[in-house]
Amino acid sequence: MTLVANNRPHQIRYRRGQTVYFEGDPALSLFKVETGLVRIAKLTPKGRVLTVRHVLPGDYFGEEAFNGMLRDHQVEALTDATLSSLDPNGINVENLQSVTRSLSDQLQRVMAYEYHLQIGDLRQRVARYLMQLAATPLGGIDEQGHPFVRATHELIAEGTSSTRESVSKIVTELRSENLVQSGYRRITLLNVAILEQLSEATDLDDKD
Amino acid sequence: MTLVANNRPHQIRYRRGQTVYFEGDPALSLFKVETGLVRIAKLTPKGRVLTVRHVLPGDYFGEEAFNGMLRDHQVEALTDATLSSLDPNGINVENLQSVTRSLSDQLQRVMAYEYHLQIGDLRQRVARYLMQLAATPLGGIDEQGHPFVRATHELIAEGTSSTRESVSKIVTELRSENLVQSGYRRITLLNVAILEQLSEATDLDDKD
Repeated sequence: MTLVANNRPHQIRYRRGQTVYFEGDPALSLFKVETGLVRIAKLTPKGRVLTVRHVLPGDYFGEEAFNGMLRDHQVEALTDATLSSLDPNGINVENLQSVTRSLSDQLQRVMAYEYHLQIGDLRQRVARYLMQLAATPLGGIDEQGHPFVRATHELIAEGTSSTRESVSKIVTELRSENLVQSGYRRITLLNVAILEQLSEATDLDDKD
Repeated sequence: MTLVANNRPHQIRYRRGQTVYFEGDPALSLFKVETGLVRIAKLTPKGRVLTVRHVLPGDYFGEEAFNGMLRDHQVEALTDATLSSLDPNGINVENLQSVTRSLSDQLQRVMAYEYHLQIGDLRQRVARYLMQLAATPLGGIDEQGHPFVRATHELIAEGTSSTRESVSKIVTELRSENLVQSGYRRITLLNVAILEQLSEATDLDDKD
């Protein structure tokens, strides 16, 4: 890592669903999310996608570039996004401080995410994930003042250690209880207070 | 974060099993592990311990101090350990670079750990965790050249999203297959090649 006085970032626009890099690519750049939501995922040997981290506006990712490794994950823009690419070998002190703060924050979030994947049943995990995504650029507030999330059941499955079929069952349940409304690629949270309560972590029995 | 020319770290010694901080404590210091193995864990509402991160010699932890938050985890020395405590508001550029590299590295490791918790059955997860711990200060090589791990079944359960009872069953199985030998607080890996093969990630069916 060399400190330089100036390192003008290069901005790139990505469309929703576009891949930023794949596992195995050489890790040449560090990225900063200027706008949009980015997710870091890993493919299992059978081709399932597991989401392992969400990167929010202001956050950095691709930090394996500091250690000159190959990319260990695939990264995808979940919404239209603008990213800045930075040379890890020419970062200035001010940016280095922002990077450190952002990585600190993300480490805490990844640990919280990991913890939550391990406790609670799928119904709790889905409720929690919907609440969480509603606060990202995938979310919004509709005309009635209800938060909503632009997400397919598949995306929710990938973020809750589950399958599309199981998530669909849960969403149907939540819909029949008037907790959510769901349409094409969009789930509206009708009762945030109850969903919040539902999403509270409780222990499962042993999984094995 | 203020950059200063000099920030002499204060060294503290911890005994195996000693707690460095608890969830809810104010986050005043950043720590560097000089020697030993440290684990970051979270208590579930029912009092189960879930290990969410391992901190190796040379690594930093307690980075929530950069964002001035309360501790969100409990941290414990798994072996005798020496830690340096640093003031997050008075860190020099050189240390900041080491911190950034270490946090980058740990983010990658935490994501790998999270991925592995989600795939494979408990037998695979236990084999993988034993191999992983053998390469930390909890591990060693015995007189016959076999790697071993100083770990209770409880510690393994806490790191594999399981229970002590289930881990004991798996260890008994592995022992009957001559893959490990186990004694008081110590598991010896008799056949690393087979354990390695066994620990390779394969997909489970849907958990829910």
